[in-house]
Amino acid sequence: MGIAQKLASNQKQVAISEFFEKNKHFLGFDSLARSLITAVKESVDNSLDACEEARMLPTLKIQISKIDSKKDIIEMKTTDNGPGIPQKSVEKVFGQLLFGSRFHAIRQSRGQQGIGITGVVMYSQLTTGTPTHVRSKIATEPTASVVDIGLDTRKNKATKSNSGREIWQTDSGEFVEHGLEITCRMKAKYQKGRQSVWQYLRMTSIVNPHADITFIDPEGEVHHWPRVTERLPGKVESIKPHPHGIHLGQLQRMCNESQDSRMTVFLRGSFSGVSSRSAKELCEASEIDIKAKPKSLKPEHVRALLESMQGERTIAGKPVKLLNPPTNCLSPIEEMLIKKGLSKTIDSRYIVTMTRAPSVSNGNPYQVEVGLIFGGSMPADKHVEVLRFANRVPLMYQQGGCLLTKAIEAVNWRQYGLDQAGGKGLPKGPAAILVHLASTNVQFTSEAKEALAENGEVMEEARKAIMEMGRGLKKHLQKKKKMAKTQEKFELINDILPAIAEKSAQILERPIPELSGSITKIMSAVISETQTTWNKETKMTDVEIVLFNYTSRARSYTILCTWPEKFGASLVNNEMGGRKEATGVWAWKLATLDPGERVTLNYSLDGLEKGDWTETDVFYRGSQEVIGATKMDEKFLEEIRQQEKALKEAGIVSNESENLQEDVAEDAEGIPMDKPTVEAPEGQQTLFGGEN
Amino acid sequence: MGIAQKLASNQKQVAISEFFEKNKHFLGFDSLARSLITAVKESVDNSLDACEEARMLPTLKIQISKIDSKKDIIEMKTTDNGPGIPQKSVEKVFGQLLFGSRFHAIRQSRGQQGIGITGVVMYSQLTTGTPTHVRSKIATEPTASVVDIGLDTRKNKATKSNSGREIWQTDSGEFVEHGLEITCRMKAKYQKGRQSVWQYLRMTSIVNPHADITFIDPEGEVHHWPRVTERLPGKVESIKPHPHGIHLGQLQRMCNESQDSRMTVFLRGSFSGVSSRSAKELCEASEIDIKAKPKSLKPEHVRALLESMQGERTIAGKPVKLLNPPTNCLSPIEEMLIKKGLSKTIDSRYIVTMTRAPSVSNGNPYQVEVGLIFGGSMPADKHVEVLRFANRVPLMYQQGGCLLTKAIEAVNWRQYGLDQAGGKGLPKGPAAILVHLASTNVQFTSEAKEALAENGEVMEEARKAIMEMGRGLKKHLQKKKKMAKTQEKFELINDILPAIAEKSAQILERPIPELSGSITKIMSAVISETQTTWNKETKMTDVEIVLFNYTSRARSYTILCTWPEKFGASLVNNEMGGRKEATGVWAWKLATLDPGERVTLNYSLDGLEKGDWTETDVFYRGSQEVIGATKMDEKFLEEIRQQEKALKEAGIVSNESENLQEDVAEDAEGIPMDKPTVEAPEGQQTLFGGEN
Repeated sequence: MGIAQKLASNQKQVAISEFFEKNKHFLGFDSLARSLITAVKESVDNSLDACEEARMLPTLKIQISKIDSKKDIIEMKTTDNGPGIPQKSVEKVFGQLLFGSRFHAIRQSRGQQGIGITGVVMYSQLTTGTPTHVRSKIATEPTASVVDIGLDTRKNKATKSNSGREIWQTDSGEFVEHGLEITCRMKAKYQKGRQSVWQYLRMTSIVNPHADITFIDPEGEVHHWPRVTERLPGKVESIKPHPHGIHLGQLQRMCNESQDSRMTVFLRGSFSGVSSRSAKELCEASEIDIKAKPKSLKPEHVRALLESMQGERTIAGKPVKLLNPPTNCLSPIEEMLIKKGLSKTIDSRYIVTMTRAPSVSNGNPYQVEVGLIFGGSMPADKHVEVLRFANRVPLMYQQGGCLLTKAIEAVNWRQYGLDQAGGKGLPKGPAAILVHLASTNVQFTSEAKEALAENGEVMEEARKAIMEMGRGLKKHLQKKKKMAKTQEKFELINDILPAIAEKSAQILERPIPELSGSITKIMSAVISETQTTWNKETKMTDVEIVLFNYTSRARSYTILCTWPEKFGASLVNNEMGGRKEATGVWAWKLATLDPGERVTLNYSLDGLEKGDWTETDVFYRGSQEVIGATKMDEKFLEEIRQQEKALKEAGIVSNESENLQEDVAEDAEGIPMDKPTVEAPEGQQTLFGGEN
Repeated sequence: MGIAQKLASNQKQVAISEFFEKNKHFLGFDSLARSLITAVKESVDNSLDACEEARMLPTLKIQISKIDSKKDIIEMKTTDNGPGIPQKSVEKVFGQLLFGSRFHAIRQSRGQQGIGITGVVMYSQLTTGTPTHVRSKIATEPTASVVDIGLDTRKNKATKSNSGREIWQTDSGEFVEHGLEITCRMKAKYQKGRQSVWQYLRMTSIVNPHADITFIDPEGEVHHWPRVTERLPGKVESIKPHPHGIHLGQLQRMCNESQDSRMTVFLRGSFSGVSSRSAKELCEASEIDIKAKPKSLKPEHVRALLESMQGERTIAGKPVKLLNPPTNCLSPIEEMLIKKGLSKTIDSRYIVTMTRAPSVSNGNPYQVEVGLIFGGSMPADKHVEVLRFANRVPLMYQQGGCLLTKAIEAVNWRQYGLDQAGGKGLPKGPAAILVHLASTNVQFTSEAKEALAENGEVMEEARKAIMEMGRGLKKHLQKKKKMAKTQEKFELINDILPAIAEKSAQILERPIPELSGSITKIMSAVISETQTTWNKETKMTDVEIVLFNYTSRARSYTILCTWPEKFGASLVNNEMGGRKEATGVWAWKLATLDPGERVTLNYSLDGLEKGDWTETDVFYRGSQEVIGATKMDEKFLEEIRQQEKALKEAGIVSNESENLQEDVAEDAEGIPMDKPTVEAPEGQQTLFGGEN
């Protein structure tokens, strides 16, 4: 036998389960500490996905127990109130790799591959030799099914034992209507800190505000993250592939496997974004008969079709126009909820959040959301904390190799007021930055789904969103600085000047001079001061805005403020009237303010809890700068209105907000309107960049 | 139908090929530029593996052509002179994922999974719809087989067309005896720079000095990296799994599948490191009958066996002693070749390399090799260049997420003379650091094999090796500084002092005083100066070492120098005699040197080319410091001898070097021997940390 034959004789087929058993670190089972987090993650992801698909509000319980500390044997038990899994499906879901429902579906989901939970079963079996106990109850059956699942890795098939049925009651004796419980033992280590089960669940609760999560740690301590909203995330619908994201080999296969009788039916039925008209045009541009059977297309026709789809073939010099894919396949968290989640979890002084409009990369819809929190008790001399999420799942490992981290590092943070060595890399400062990518096809660097792979378009979207937030931070810091300076000057003039005048008058034995004119002249500013305080008695948040005119001219203004209308707050005890300009934006047109005069606005916010709203953003319209408030950028306001309109059309927002757009321009008593500031927003920046 | 049933009805099995087609970025096919590098890499890896297994010196040719620049269609054609693949195996090797010979073998190889080249076929088909053309010639058949291979991703099976046989002649008309040629077209981008095909092949040639690589780029330019050694890497042997790296689930399976009639046979035959005696002891500690059939072991017995294997069960309080696994499953590059490869590729002033002794992690033998080059034309204000390798394959992507990078970052480089912001992270300076991990089971973070996953033990080994190199760098920099200072002082004294004396004498009209005593007194040092120059006429490298005694006492020394004996150089024209102390180390015992006296050593090196050897390291034995030379650390010398001995025993080193160890201690004319310096080496540091 020659050497070539000898070498070839050793070759054989490897089962996918053998592959992943050997490469279990691809699945996130590398260190003992990480293995436990991976197991919890896979189980929690599955529960949240199942609940969302079944439109149920998830209630999860995760219990970690140490079985043998010396040998690092740990038991994980996770329970959910989801739809459960029918008995005959249990063994495939848990005991067969690459078995699942989400692989071919084009929509946002946590699980995609059909690997995760089977990986947990495999790891348990490999490290402790024990199967995973599964209890599943579905609504249509009276009892729960129970079974012990293992994995024959040579064949990628489940092994099952001790299967049966039983009545499932909770500890308190209630009958469980539906749900799933998984119990498994594995070699693992429980640890605390930044990379821990606790942290994973805490992060999960930030981006899944509709979930109720209870964690019982090995010491028996109970950690509870209650749901902060009863609203389930929007239902996501599977979409067809979009022609822009199709590869030639894929198109060949789709044509080949199609049972459609004619091209137009095939094109409209198999793709998103293809109308009757564009289906015909695609055929025309490709020189294919619209009545041709897709199955019998010649290779050169398939190639031509792809070229037409991707705009390389045209009709009369123009590419065939295709619609964007629908974006109801995505489920962003939305700014308000990110903010609420963040502020509940991290103590800080300033929060800004932002959700970009959905985009499409290679035919896959995706959407970037970001949040930044600043100040509070966070350390000023350390790198900012990075909170990464993909499809509502926290990413805990491989931070350095992740696209989302790189997007943060690619921004020049010095210009926004944060320290950054050499003008690149992670900035330093008392801040945390959150980035969430929602996508129908999140491209991770490996099966463990801990870091996002390179993608120029997603990177650019994330970078833009982050820069926009950065600008918000810069404004906030500048405003703080300016206010502090003005305060100092004000105190100097108002306290010391009269004292000097009095002293001088005393010495010279002359009357104390009238100073108000001089003070006005020296200050030469309009100042606003805002106080937001919790009123114990009324259980309301009281807001007071005072405006001083320390200039020598009469001034006219419209004052605007933000309030958390979307959180359910209502604006009450508002004696000055005014009107609503957009959701969460109120405006008061003030009477002319004479030199040296002041005016006070008072109102309360009802429907909030203590700590929900601790600082109010104040804006103004008028020609003279108001220190302590921000000039209203009409473009921002316009965008908020557009966003509202879009959300209303999509049926997402229920609370009506009158469109008062038409009478916005006329304002401020003849003082000429300012143009919107030059710094145009690149996305839909929220106005709610207030402090809380 | 209930919701649970409805959800379950969508579940189905996904083929591994569908999985990797969707997740092609796991395999390294993310960006167009990287896809091309991945394709080249998979093909080159396979060729090098096949040649090594067949014990053939590899000659590779890689040609990249642009087929359609507008559509980014590129053709890759790779040819090797390896053993070829038998016709009937071709379709499985190229058209079936997870098919290969190296998955179950425990030894060092580039390919492991049986995924790589099939991934290339899959990517070509997906992006251009075309199959991959394979031409294979094996030595025992008169003609080559040709076939076009595609992949039915729904089934993970090859599709083949146009198969046949033909006579394979090279462009110059020679008949090809054996070899493999792969031609495929894919959507990809050719680019230059740090992440390019050119750079990948250049790096490959550094760590595969036995390979001859020719690259023809899309402009038709030919790049050739000839082999720098005719010696094939040591043959690697597959080993059995070691008991220390076994998991319970695996052991259960091994017992289950065993056909052995008794435990002792099973234990000795299935594991490495288990002798007859330890097999019996393992049974005893586990309370298993040594005659028991492995197949019929009860689960608790298997558990007990694992505990005994891992030292948790003991006999008379002692764990069962197992041997380490053999390390002939590894194939390190070896210091000399790393150095030769590096110095040919990167212009620099100083090189140090180091190969650590093999270690074992979880039953897997592994070995770390490092190299550092400093100075030359490298930029001083940038981060050092990092060259990462695993099993002789360059790693080009995901540098930040790789264990090898983290090992470099974990070292405090400031103490070794390099800039490092905040005392961590990549250092800055005119240096490049090479790290190579050779292992029977390299744990990558993903199938693309671009970054190593976390592993505490490997990390520690790499860190130690790097620190050792760092110490070498520090010494080099200190020596440079000291020499410069002495030089300055010497010039001052030797040039200016006589001038002043002369001038003074002139003015005072007195005779010029005799200064040599004063100079000696002021210098109070023994100085050595070494010159290494290329002699055009003789085609040899001439070395001159001069030793000055600028002290007031007579001094005795043994002077030692290094020369590249392993590169094939011989030491000639050595009129002062002396003797060889170890491979590449020559020694001269000098006659006593009186105050103010000097002595000159001259010799030449034959068998080198210009530029091969440009600076000589000089060492001394003696009590008074010699500026310009290094005190010989006898421990180092001893280690070189040990290493030589080990290599000779392993049959790797052919050139004999006499062991003169016994008469080393007696030396230097009664001047007491110095103890070896305190800074003990942690590995087998090379003495060849010289400049070149």
